[in-house]
Amino acid sequence: MSDLTRKPAATQTQNLAGAAAVGAARHAATRGSPLPRHRRIGKHADEGHELSTFGGLAALSLDALSSVAYGPEAMVLVLVTAGTGALRFTLPLTLVITAMLALLVVSYTQVISAHPEGGGAYAVAKANLGRLPAQLAAASLFVDYVLTVAVSLAAGAASLGSVFPGLAHHLLLVCLVGLALLTAVNMFGISESAKLLMLPTIVFVVSIFAVIVVSPFHAHPVAKIGTSLGAFRPTTALGVVLILKAFASGCSAVTGVEAIANGVPAFRKPRVRRAQRTEVSLGVLLGVMLVGLAILIRAHHVVPRGGVTILAQLTAGSFGTGWAFYVSNLAVTLVLAFAANTSFGGLPVLMSLLAKDNRMPHLFYLRAERPVYRYGIGALAIAAALLLVAVAGETSRLIPLFTIGVFMGFTISQVGLVRHWRSMRPPRWRLRAAINGAGATMTAIAVVVFLGSKFLEGAWVVVLVIPMLMLLFWRIEVYYDEVARELRLGQTPPAPHARASIVIVPTTTISVLTELALSAALSLGDRVVAIAVAGDEEEADHLRDTWGRWACNVPLEVLLDPHRSLVHTVLRYIESLDAHDQRVMVLIPQIIPHKRRHEILHNQRARLLESALKARTQDVVIASLPFHIDD
Amino acid sequence: MSDLTRKPAATQTQNLAGAAAVGAARHAATRGSPLPRHRRIGKHADEGHELSTFGGLAALSLDALSSVAYGPEAMVLVLVTAGTGALRFTLPLTLVITAMLALLVVSYTQVISAHPEGGGAYAVAKANLGRLPAQLAAASLFVDYVLTVAVSLAAGAASLGSVFPGLAHHLLLVCLVGLALLTAVNMFGISESAKLLMLPTIVFVVSIFAVIVVSPFHAHPVAKIGTSLGAFRPTTALGVVLILKAFASGCSAVTGVEAIANGVPAFRKPRVRRAQRTEVSLGVLLGVMLVGLAILIRAHHVVPRGGVTILAQLTAGSFGTGWAFYVSNLAVTLVLAFAANTSFGGLPVLMSLLAKDNRMPHLFYLRAERPVYRYGIGALAIAAALLLVAVAGETSRLIPLFTIGVFMGFTISQVGLVRHWRSMRPPRWRLRAAINGAGATMTAIAVVVFLGSKFLEGAWVVVLVIPMLMLLFWRIEVYYDEVARELRLGQTPPAPHARASIVIVPTTTISVLTELALSAALSLGDRVVAIAVAGDEEEADHLRDTWGRWACNVPLEVLLDPHRSLVHTVLRYIESLDAHDQRVMVLIPQIIPHKRRHEILHNQRARLLESALKARTQDVVIASLPFHIDD
Repeated sequence: MSDLTRKPAATQTQNLAGAAAVGAARHAATRGSPLPRHRRIGKHADEGHELSTFGGLAALSLDALSSVAYGPEAMVLVLVTAGTGALRFTLPLTLVITAMLALLVVSYTQVISAHPEGGGAYAVAKANLGRLPAQLAAASLFVDYVLTVAVSLAAGAASLGSVFPGLAHHLLLVCLVGLALLTAVNMFGISESAKLLMLPTIVFVVSIFAVIVVSPFHAHPVAKIGTSLGAFRPTTALGVVLILKAFASGCSAVTGVEAIANGVPAFRKPRVRRAQRTEVSLGVLLGVMLVGLAILIRAHHVVPRGGVTILAQLTAGSFGTGWAFYVSNLAVTLVLAFAANTSFGGLPVLMSLLAKDNRMPHLFYLRAERPVYRYGIGALAIAAALLLVAVAGETSRLIPLFTIGVFMGFTISQVGLVRHWRSMRPPRWRLRAAINGAGATMTAIAVVVFLGSKFLEGAWVVVLVIPMLMLLFWRIEVYYDEVARELRLGQTPPAPHARASIVIVPTTTISVLTELALSAALSLGDRVVAIAVAGDEEEADHLRDTWGRWACNVPLEVLLDPHRSLVHTVLRYIESLDAHDQRVMVLIPQIIPHKRRHEILHNQRARLLESALKARTQDVVIASLPFHIDD
Repeated sequence: MSDLTRKPAATQTQNLAGAAAVGAARHAATRGSPLPRHRRIGKHADEGHELSTFGGLAALSLDALSSVAYGPEAMVLVLVTAGTGALRFTLPLTLVITAMLALLVVSYTQVISAHPEGGGAYAVAKANLGRLPAQLAAASLFVDYVLTVAVSLAAGAASLGSVFPGLAHHLLLVCLVGLALLTAVNMFGISESAKLLMLPTIVFVVSIFAVIVVSPFHAHPVAKIGTSLGAFRPTTALGVVLILKAFASGCSAVTGVEAIANGVPAFRKPRVRRAQRTEVSLGVLLGVMLVGLAILIRAHHVVPRGGVTILAQLTAGSFGTGWAFYVSNLAVTLVLAFAANTSFGGLPVLMSLLAKDNRMPHLFYLRAERPVYRYGIGALAIAAALLLVAVAGETSRLIPLFTIGVFMGFTISQVGLVRHWRSMRPPRWRLRAAINGAGATMTAIAVVVFLGSKFLEGAWVVVLVIPMLMLLFWRIEVYYDEVARELRLGQTPPAPHARASIVIVPTTTISVLTELALSAALSLGDRVVAIAVAGDEEEADHLRDTWGRWACNVPLEVLLDPHRSLVHTVLRYIESLDAHDQRVMVLIPQIIPHKRRHEILHNQRARLLESALKARTQDVVIASLPFHIDD
């Protein structure tokens, strides 16, 4: 598609895109919106919702911070298959992951300075790498968003189940109820504010730190909850594969670190500096929590069991099972729910961007009456629900699918940045390119590790879905290109010109409705003809007589049709007209009942006629005159 | 509703009612069509399908004749619950039922002469008894048609299962497959001819007679098929209730004797004489078969068992299990299937008549493209399917529901005839009234017996459904009356008059589509305005500039809306116009893709705008200009 034809489509979409709600805007604005900058800034200025460093942590880092609730656990679950002795690898693996986190954080501070307009992987790839990588980025993000919802809800349910054992056997149900709640909240466009998020975030971070600090000095035995650990035999036959698998699972702990870079426009000035500071804070917090928890896991040989998560066991070990246990674990659940909610801000906006780029049905940038993308929200809810049902709400079965999409996004973003530095050549561009290149290489290797070690455990799903999504984007783009060609978008069309017009009014009986329709027709057409169908001459005479008695000054054409098909008759009459020298309009009166359920009692014929005319005529205007019934 | 307002509705419907297909016409014409007589006669003359006495038997009596396949069996099933000794009541009860049949046949020869235009119970009640009995008749017929389909299919499946024991455990499946076949055949409007029906009818009648004649002289022991009878202890504690129950079940054997009277117009002249002769022939055939089978059942103590019907056991007893056994039982199955099919000719036509009388949604007299009532056929198929699933395809569980509706119809028809004779007073009217009165009394008593003896076994369903249907008819009628009042149907409306007109064209981009829409608008309106939405002044300026460069001579109004909602903007603009001195039309271009599945890619906004305008504006014409894409 040439740029010429692409432009009008963008114009078209601009007119439709409403301003975003606070929550949506945050992610919206963010994962690569092509909206003119002044609008977005104006938006945030209007709302007085610009983020401070700490507000940014609460609003944009929940996805990342909440990963500590499932990342370490996912790693331990892999290691423990080789016996508790294998848990000694927890700390070294966590240190590797933390090192990777550090490199990612540095990389993303560079993304922030290079794309202060909020460069999501899709926008970065579109700007720097071309169509295929952009589609790959979009597909990865798509998968990432759906999995974020599913994983966060599953982990949240597990956390809730650890506190209330009665729920432990109904985790899928808990997940689905949570999903329904999130969907409803987002459908109705209730905006979340950063302030609302702060309290559970603070409680969450503080309680994790408290667990880490208190635990070594405290007396509560960790094995207090649930059954005893049992005697695991340490094994030395632990292979490279197991370690790689554990690494792959553990990497789920660093998902979400890209969100701050995507949300730069939401920060208070100086945006770039403030966002970079927030990114580094996130990195430090997350790194400390991961290492701290790894040390505790190592020290206490904690493994998930009896429906109680590792985190819940550790909090119980530190605080006992009193109020502090409940508060901290409910904070974990809440933070995970908010983390799931971030996808509801993100995916619908990504879909609307894809729709604007003609890669998804334009439907997805329609925002019915409220400023939310209902179709996108619905699509996300359905996808997440299917996924949760498929894995029966078990977090551990989602983890193998999760990290691939996220790390693909990391890789693409950073490759895009390398390209960006090479073409822009700012001061120290080589160093910058080297940092992003290193990040890209590392995350690319991680993707290969994930694929290799987790293929049969679920990664194959992602390997199937991502190319399928790319194919879908491509097919839709090709189709819209063809439509744009047919509409000659981008070319100035000839000036419109008037022709003589004839308005056809299908009639069956003489009533107020007929009068209204004919009045409308007389106002609009140069000529007006009423059309009726008769089965035979006798009936036709009767119809003409009745019409003649009305004396309405509009000619009635009675056409004979043995089957009395109104559709055929109107079509036949239209064909009999010379459409080239006149504009034809068919005007169909329609009764609009007051109550929706009465709709089945009306307009079946009008609808049939309308759809037949739309399908089978060319260049005929099909009009309806609604008549409201107060029943 | 006064007659004044009712008439135009009738006119309206006449224009829509197409001529009936052969199969449909038969019953159509039949259970009380108000179509002008010349049309129907013309129809049959056209088709050269007028019925002889024998043709009438094949075409109109299958429902009645096929009853011998389940009626006697239903009676025996009740009696045998008291032991095989109770089977000695088979013959006396059959004689009572046969006597009733004789009286019914005489009654119906009178119905034939009184209503030679084909007087179904609904038409007779409407003409002679008023609204409530007409609604009762309609509800009874409704139930009757649905049950005819279900009972005939269930009995047909049982017959097939007797021949092919492999099917005996999948009777419900056989029923549903048969139902699907019948539905498809009727949806596509394949007409059945009387000739097609003759062969299986002849084979059926001949084989029943052969069974009766051959059996006493033949050596095949009846108990040859299936397990032995076992020793039933005769009992003397057989109460009146049991006999009444057996009678009620046995009465299902006389269902369908009304069909000939309904189909008089389908006969060759002299219609009345020929139809009466057919009715009497039917009575004699049916009576002889019933009494003959009762004697055999009595003599051989046959009871249904091992998934083999009584009729199949008797044919096996007479012919052995060679080819004659297969041919005769397949004829039974086929005749039952055709009997089920008669309802597909009948109920959709009844529903169309009710729709014409404003007692069902007008939808049901719509005959899409082919001359069949698809909605009625669909409704019948769904109702029959639900019923079959509810009783798991067992005939015996349907019988308690079946006879009530049929006998109510008998009663209403004959009460109507009594009223008819009293008002017409033809020669010997007292005798005629007495005959119909006796018939009515007898069938009314039968209804009471059915209700009393079968209430808990399923009759309660009918007792619930019939008033519910009547309530439905009544509510729909009241609603349409109200609509007719608002449309002032029957009053001559004022003459239509023209006003100045303005056509609004919502635009988002300049393309061929815009040009076409504006050309159409210019041809139709006195004034044309293009409307666009902008989020802010800057965007508005940009839109005005682009428009100005096109120089299309149509003014563009750019409205500001922070949410860029096209719907709100168009509504706001319409409100700002003074609608009283001008006619407002909104013209929305629509893309019509070549493939249906591409529809999701287009027109979401157009549809949203259309439905919002229809719901929220008064007196505004909403038009669309289809633009076909050749993709």
